[in-house]
Amino acid sequence: MHAITERPLAVHLLPALVTPEALAGGVVIMIDALRASVTISAALAAGAVRVVPTLTVEDAERLRGPGRLLGGERGGVLIPGFDLDNSPRAYTPERVRGKEIVFTTANGTAALLHARAAHEVLIGAVTNVSAIVARVAGEPRAAHILCAGTRGEITMDDCLAAGLIAERLVAAGRQVVSDDSARMCVGLAKLAAAHPGGLGAGVLGLMSESRGGRGLTRLGFEDDLRLCSTLDAVAVVPVFAGGAITCGRLS
Amino acid sequence: MHAITERPLAVHLLPALVTPEALAGGVVIMIDALRASVTISAALAAGAVRVVPTLTVEDAERLRGPGRLLGGERGGVLIPGFDLDNSPRAYTPERVRGKEIVFTTANGTAALLHARAAHEVLIGAVTNVSAIVARVAGEPRAAHILCAGTRGEITMDDCLAAGLIAERLVAAGRQVVSDDSARMCVGLAKLAAAHPGGLGAGVLGLMSESRGGRGLTRLGFEDDLRLCSTLDAVAVVPVFAGGAITCGRLS
Repeated sequence: MHAITERPLAVHLLPALVTPEALAGGVVIMIDALRASVTISAALAAGAVRVVPTLTVEDAERLRGPGRLLGGERGGVLIPGFDLDNSPRAYTPERVRGKEIVFTTANGTAALLHARAAHEVLIGAVTNVSAIVARVAGEPRAAHILCAGTRGEITMDDCLAAGLIAERLVAAGRQVVSDDSARMCVGLAKLAAAHPGGLGAGVLGLMSESRGGRGLTRLGFEDDLRLCSTLDAVAVVPVFAGGAITCGRLS
Repeated sequence: MHAITERPLAVHLLPALVTPEALAGGVVIMIDALRASVTISAALAAGAVRVVPTLTVEDAERLRGPGRLLGGERGGVLIPGFDLDNSPRAYTPERVRGKEIVFTTANGTAALLHARAAHEVLIGAVTNVSAIVARVAGEPRAAHILCAGTRGEITMDDCLAAGLIAERLVAAGRQVVSDDSARMCVGLAKLAAAHPGGLGAGVLGLMSESRGGRGLTRLGFEDDLRLCSTLDAVAVVPVFAGGAITCGRLS
């Protein structure tokens, strides 16, 4: 029997808590659980050719052109003059098939750029846990789960998604948790699983309680909150490379 | 009936995640759960007059003098030439009563200095949760729980202690959780409470699993790990003011 080498799995609760150099050469799973990770996944699942993330509204507007739609949000709502907001349910095949989406989301884009030296950058959420795990479980490189946070603050929704992915990666046998941030996120996943109503109810409960979840409820986006809290609801693996996000093959 | 104004309760998982200015005027509960918070508490409970924290070994050595003992650790063990290590069980009345303890612990001291603009700085741990809550519950100022971490890394042992304190402060009725970091720490406390063996077993389990807990086990300090994981085992409230830590009255 061949020895299976254990690979370190770290979770970074904010981009500021890890240097780009520490991510170099590894596989990074960027999480912006409410809602950018899910919206990007939904756009690709609905047939968008690619998603081009930009930090600012102005950067997005400069990329306006034929075959392109502008999406994203500021303050949780549609940016004036944009085609699409940050609601994954808005990215239907009718709207986005064959299109390129220029997408501006400050936290998620900054996190993606932070991971630019990584060997590979994937985008994860509650909605694609199994797909991410299937892709990363056999990975020989160090894995890093990078939570985007919100304006420099740690968010429980990102950390719960990180914990669900970390727990299953470890269960898959090759990755080993290498820091307490990962252990805490796995703790949140265990807390969700201990909910009397089951894991799904536990995940929805913690997501609703989170700062981002409260914000979505306040804005009337309860349906988005439910979708973003549903395990494996949008089972694609978005891959960020060369400035664009495309739909990853399941390896 | 008079309205009771709700007071914000924030948890900062590392000193680097909050500015000294943001702590100004508030009540800060600094946590270095394994083991400095407990060792300082134990020294005061055993009759030490005060504990003077220093960042470096050299700073501590400069304060050597009559009536003073030097304590602390580097790499978890006794510093050569020092009188006491960082084991709370070493701080017995026979050793420390009436003495001043010069104590060097890099993470805890840095966190205390970070909170220098606060109205009041208390030192918390699993071992004095009830005493801290009794003191802070009626507090009209904003409360901040400040986790020391270890060399810039978030530690689960600090976060669990933070969660146990935060959960009980909120239950006491006046404080309201103001950020997701606090919600996550409370989540760890709930996970501990959901342990089949009860809260005590749950706390010991998470503390043992933490990076600091693993380190203590490796060094043979299982008894310290158990003591530091025991709710209300050392029921004093250390107060940091004017460069020294003394035993706070229960207000």
